[in-house]
Amino acid sequence: MHTPDIHLRSVGTTLPGPPIGNDRLARQFGTNAQWEQWVGSFIGTNTRHLTIDLDSGQQRQTLADLGATAGRRALSSAGLAGSDIDLMVLGTSTPDQLLPATVNLVADRLGVNEVPTYQLLSGCCGAVQAMDLACQLLRTGAYRTALVLGGEASAKHIDLNMDITKLSPAALVSLVLFGDGAGAAVLGVEPTPDSAVLRHVFTRLTGQDRAPGHTVEWFGLGDRNSDKPAATEDYKAIEALVPTMAEEILQEVLDALEWKESDLDFLLPPQLSGQMTRKIADRLGVSGAQEISCVRDTANTGNATPFLQLERVLPLMDPGDRAIGIAVESSKWIKSGFALEKV
Amino acid sequence: MHTPDIHLRSVGTTLPGPPIGNDRLARQFGTNAQWEQWVGSFIGTNTRHLTIDLDSGQQRQTLADLGATAGRRALSSAGLAGSDIDLMVLGTSTPDQLLPATVNLVADRLGVNEVPTYQLLSGCCGAVQAMDLACQLLRTGAYRTALVLGGEASAKHIDLNMDITKLSPAALVSLVLFGDGAGAAVLGVEPTPDSAVLRHVFTRLTGQDRAPGHTVEWFGLGDRNSDKPAATEDYKAIEALVPTMAEEILQEVLDALEWKESDLDFLLPPQLSGQMTRKIADRLGVSGAQEISCVRDTANTGNATPFLQLERVLPLMDPGDRAIGIAVESSKWIKSGFALEKV
Repeated sequence: MHTPDIHLRSVGTTLPGPPIGNDRLARQFGTNAQWEQWVGSFIGTNTRHLTIDLDSGQQRQTLADLGATAGRRALSSAGLAGSDIDLMVLGTSTPDQLLPATVNLVADRLGVNEVPTYQLLSGCCGAVQAMDLACQLLRTGAYRTALVLGGEASAKHIDLNMDITKLSPAALVSLVLFGDGAGAAVLGVEPTPDSAVLRHVFTRLTGQDRAPGHTVEWFGLGDRNSDKPAATEDYKAIEALVPTMAEEILQEVLDALEWKESDLDFLLPPQLSGQMTRKIADRLGVSGAQEISCVRDTANTGNATPFLQLERVLPLMDPGDRAIGIAVESSKWIKSGFALEKV
Repeated sequence: MHTPDIHLRSVGTTLPGPPIGNDRLARQFGTNAQWEQWVGSFIGTNTRHLTIDLDSGQQRQTLADLGATAGRRALSSAGLAGSDIDLMVLGTSTPDQLLPATVNLVADRLGVNEVPTYQLLSGCCGAVQAMDLACQLLRTGAYRTALVLGGEASAKHIDLNMDITKLSPAALVSLVLFGDGAGAAVLGVEPTPDSAVLRHVFTRLTGQDRAPGHTVEWFGLGDRNSDKPAATEDYKAIEALVPTMAEEILQEVLDALEWKESDLDFLLPPQLSGQMTRKIADRLGVSGAQEISCVRDTANTGNATPFLQLERVLPLMDPGDRAIGIAVESSKWIKSGFALEKV
């Protein structure tokens, strides 16, 4: 049986509200100029977009809002309606609710109905997991066109009244490290004039016997007054492991396609923080490839990230151009990567 | 290309702690004998198992605990080790944390590593979604053996100190309607002496323009003191729609396989509550098939339910016997069903 190529037909993204600088965060939480300098030097993230309005404390957008906007843009760019979609997959670590799954609220708004929908709970690798699933399912021949989404809306995690002098370093860094946003892509078995082919996608758990590098809690009625930390990050483990994992992912994708590093025109490295992304990209050392990064402006947008990178790289690709994207999830150490070729 | 049959090789389940009767709940929350009678007559659920210990208020088991136990039982029953698994999918509406996804913690405990893992956020249809995904992915030929899991650990949702006179009817009913548990199944492309073939599995969103029938919130640092209801249920909509959806699912599975109702030896109806399941089973009216239900003893265990039913039906099936399972998710109105044949 002929296995069809999977075409990336279009990408759409959205970022909520205006960019929020480190100075605005410093003013919000009463930190000093030293803190702002420290964020610039050690984190390297300058701005982010948030679903919470810092002035009013209100959540301006839900993940369903962001997902619907990104999805609408991707559909429009592919010249499709919701009714053309026969499979939908969303990856997120910040669902609006536990039930219904946000993917189904987005589907409703886009006019996607009577099709299977899947929502993956995942961190930085969820968007690649969603693309991976869609590719595998499209290749079965049971579907023609999939809408894949990823995004984060972290408003519920942010307590504007908190005393930051009492915050753990992890919680403090999370404030500057993460941003909100969403992205969507239309994948299909039919080529379109502007599409690129997804030559390879993979995700794989690799965390055997290794403690989680990143945890995020949710609270229910029964434990919402507990003093359990809402998030933890093991920075030392992340700094030690993620660059190596990124190298291994790059090599694995190259090997799977029998591509050489010199064949690569674009590289989409993991977007942890401005500084970490810089270190990882340097370590990967693919000097011939143009780096496509957005983290200094958008912060780490979790499951939105690969879509933000894809939206930037697609218009730059000429026929024959090749790109590889890499995402690493430190929660339980997941590897993921994908390769794109303009035909 | 020959599309391989997918074999259900084994099932394992677990229920936390001792069965908790309605009298125990009544004592816990200071309700009266009238309430107990009302639960018996209108809900029809007699006992449930909970991950929270009602005496101490402590959470005894996490979803990872339950999933690891169920998974170990399923692996053991299939004569396999974690290292034999090359794909893992978990469906739940009560992940232990937002990150890492619980599936990866279960994988670690079972020795499943270096494989793709997926965690679906879903309610009553999540277990069927997980089976559906595993079947589709196994049929691609890229995997040989999948471990599929579903379960719920609702301890975080339960506040033992709450004043039930102030609870909404929905929250009050949730207390008696739902129970905790987990199940797992090994699916594979290789037949084994005791396996049955999964002839058909499907899930499909059908909720266009229809308000959610069931919502469950999670709280973060920023909104944990809000007075937003933690859960809502639209009982009228559920009573009006679920029986019809169950009929349509049954007919769809029969049609897909060109089976007649009279071919059916076992029926696994949705397990909403003792009374609702009774009504639905009567309405389905498959008089020649034996009903496999557990809801009066286990309550509605969400994503664990199909596994609890499968564990009961498998030993009863003789070669040639046919079973159909039905699950309906009222969150955003998802249909799902599956068909099993002993060969």
